[in-house]
Amino acid sequence: MSKNALPRQADDFPAWYAEIIRRAELAEHGPVRGTMVIRPYGTAIWELVQRALDDRIKATGHENVVFPMLMPASMLAREAELVEGFAPEVAVVTRAGGEELAEPLVVRPTSEAMIWSTYAGWIQSYRDLPLLFNQWANVVRWELRTRLFLRTTEFLWQEGHTAHETHAEAQREARRILDDVYADTIEGVLAIPVLRGRKSASERFPAALDTLTCEVMVRDRKALQAATSHDFGQSFARTYDVTFTGRDGKRAHPYATSWGASTRLIGGLVMAHGDDRGLRLPPAVAPYQAVIVPIGDTRSTAAALGDELRREGVRVRVDDRDEVREGAKFHEWERKGVPVRIDVGPRDVAAGTAIVTRRDRDGHETIAFADLPERIPSLLADIQRTLFADALAFRDAHLFAPATFDEAVDVLANGGGFVRAGWCGDAACEERMKAATRATIRCLPLDAEATAAACIACGRPAVAGAVWGLAY
Amino acid sequence: MSKNALPRQADDFPAWYAEIIRRAELAEHGPVRGTMVIRPYGTAIWELVQRALDDRIKATGHENVVFPMLMPASMLAREAELVEGFAPEVAVVTRAGGEELAEPLVVRPTSEAMIWSTYAGWIQSYRDLPLLFNQWANVVRWELRTRLFLRTTEFLWQEGHTAHETHAEAQREARRILDDVYADTIEGVLAIPVLRGRKSASERFPAALDTLTCEVMVRDRKALQAATSHDFGQSFARTYDVTFTGRDGKRAHPYATSWGASTRLIGGLVMAHGDDRGLRLPPAVAPYQAVIVPIGDTRSTAAALGDELRREGVRVRVDDRDEVREGAKFHEWERKGVPVRIDVGPRDVAAGTAIVTRRDRDGHETIAFADLPERIPSLLADIQRTLFADALAFRDAHLFAPATFDEAVDVLANGGGFVRAGWCGDAACEERMKAATRATIRCLPLDAEATAAACIACGRPAVAGAVWGLAY
Repeated sequence: MSKNALPRQADDFPAWYAEIIRRAELAEHGPVRGTMVIRPYGTAIWELVQRALDDRIKATGHENVVFPMLMPASMLAREAELVEGFAPEVAVVTRAGGEELAEPLVVRPTSEAMIWSTYAGWIQSYRDLPLLFNQWANVVRWELRTRLFLRTTEFLWQEGHTAHETHAEAQREARRILDDVYADTIEGVLAIPVLRGRKSASERFPAALDTLTCEVMVRDRKALQAATSHDFGQSFARTYDVTFTGRDGKRAHPYATSWGASTRLIGGLVMAHGDDRGLRLPPAVAPYQAVIVPIGDTRSTAAALGDELRREGVRVRVDDRDEVREGAKFHEWERKGVPVRIDVGPRDVAAGTAIVTRRDRDGHETIAFADLPERIPSLLADIQRTLFADALAFRDAHLFAPATFDEAVDVLANGGGFVRAGWCGDAACEERMKAATRATIRCLPLDAEATAAACIACGRPAVAGAVWGLAY
Repeated sequence: MSKNALPRQADDFPAWYAEIIRRAELAEHGPVRGTMVIRPYGTAIWELVQRALDDRIKATGHENVVFPMLMPASMLAREAELVEGFAPEVAVVTRAGGEELAEPLVVRPTSEAMIWSTYAGWIQSYRDLPLLFNQWANVVRWELRTRLFLRTTEFLWQEGHTAHETHAEAQREARRILDDVYADTIEGVLAIPVLRGRKSASERFPAALDTLTCEVMVRDRKALQAATSHDFGQSFARTYDVTFTGRDGKRAHPYATSWGASTRLIGGLVMAHGDDRGLRLPPAVAPYQAVIVPIGDTRSTAAALGDELRREGVRVRVDDRDEVREGAKFHEWERKGVPVRIDVGPRDVAAGTAIVTRRDRDGHETIAFADLPERIPSLLADIQRTLFADALAFRDAHLFAPATFDEAVDVLANGGGFVRAGWCGDAACEERMKAATRATIRCLPLDAEATAAACIACGRPAVAGAVWGLAY
């Protein structure tokens, strides 16, 4: 392996991932175990993802709020399932202002407890409902095994928390978020196809009646849970004494949903589109959609082209650094996944043309300067489509419908991809598959036709189609 | 006082402030002492302030980054002045993941220690400089006396941290941020006039050689430090072992700046523009710049007008709530400081006109529907100018240049406003004024002409003009 080459994905995917995160300057480890410094390039991608999510969260009628990060330990403890789910992972503040605190404070691992305690003061009548709120926040979960972006002790996310008059309305909300916020962002912006489905009971969020998920397949054929949306029924309202006077004049508990997507999406983006040469960024989340590299004394032409493209709304970087050789620039932008590179040499200036290279396929083409303002945006749109189509083709090529349990085990244990098959609903069958392959049910797809007549594990009648996979 | 009236500013400014924060639904107290829940209306204002700052931070060449919130206590402890300044205020995590931690972790009160520890790995050569980075983050400082937005144990802010090859460049950076980011946002967007100046040694940020500040006057004639920008010289580079190879081939320490503005700006906005009827929001940071109130059965007209105004880029709310009476709506939007209210009744629909009321002055005018798309944006621009002009006139009317120490004491001790006068530079004179009035030197204005021949306190030659005031 040359000094500049990345590990090959096929040889060692985790090593490839760690190395591309570092070499594309996305992030590095912080001083406290499991924490992460997100570098400027990674932060710029996150801001674009954030904007895409936030626009959709607002377009579906939600408003942002800001809740405190610290809560009394007793507040979290009121909800038994939350405590059971998160107590092993929380970070606890026991001293502040130079004194031992009378009651320890928990750094939020998630905010249901904090927010539902507060909602008690905000909800009196059915007229106060629904509450459709979201917050952008950092949370801390003391994970044992961490990996940059995918699982870090502190991460950034949005968490939506809504309150509704009826269960049906809460269920529609959870589904709407899955479709109109998450799937729309992940497919339409991150260019990653998603499987939408329900979690089986063993994979649900603590206290949830139902957890909906967007599952994606990455390039080592494993699954990544990209975003989840939960229906809690009335459990938080009961725990935190939230009631409202209904249309019938009686007091009732409102219904809760919560839903979150995090910096983990950046990890998904890297793993779903990257190749042996580095990142491949969908134009919609590329901090630079096009890089112009002047070769020789063509700076002023490059700068003018850059301005023209910016007027078309393209995010352009003109890389006129003196101290970096052209070859190094080519490799850097390839590694960083910039969708389009535009080289401008003296002969090009004379001919009035530039050499345009797409990151998503081999080869290059010559385009006249005058045509660039029209051609580059349409190239970018095509790259966005192509990356999605590539990822979809990859996933579908590795989504199997085996006829027998042994065939399923063969696919899963060998990391061949996902298995789609019938499931009887019994946790024992889920457990049997896991014991044989380490694979879990990623979801019970929402679009599951009643194709699967029998459970792949036990042969009894299937109650649902299920997708199994090894997961991050 | 009627149930709906606010306390009068002149009677009890702190009570007015607390009540308007609550009644305009900006924020409320969190469950942990000194923490704050920012409600949707307050969050929407903050997002507009944030966007204004972020646009300017990027326009001046900076990139955003994300650093972890938790740092080893020993990391903060390396810098003696930081420890001295912040140790009494930090919150400390001693347990995590179910175990006592070997080394306690500090929740960041500010990030110089974390960031300069990391910069050690990012800076090798003068070619790596400058580093021009900013982060949006939450910080925790265990304050004894808290007040919503102005001083809370957790607050949101941006903190810029830059590294430079020369001291002169760092000094230009600190000044540029003061002018092109902070003053430009606070005056141009928040419509609050600022005094730009240096802090005296006693008011500087820990470890800073120089602290530049934007000071504003609010409606009780006190000062609010709205944003600060610090020149640290080489102190952090020395403490955290950051060196680079200079153009001369020798190793040298880079120069640091840091600069921050926080959710405190919302408190400033409330205090600088509010009146006895509630908030008065500058249109640039008003979540709704215009509210349309349909009176009687005029919803469809109101909705159509709303759409037309939105096409002009106006943020419009059509308040068609059935369950709220019109009078209550008028009071609510007045209290919430919406710049323009547009009432549409059946007679107005017949006449093709609307009644338009500005929040910044009494009275109203009748405007034809057809003229609204042109008139409302120009009204909003006028309101933005008027609020700034009002605040400037108010400040200038309460900025005194007394001839004697006794006159200065008279102004300050009675809460009359700011005093501008010569200062010899001796901390004893600063202390003498503080003992007599509780006022501090808010800043040594950058535009100070050498007018002040003598120190107002001791009569010796002045080295600087100074502005004194009581401060939040």
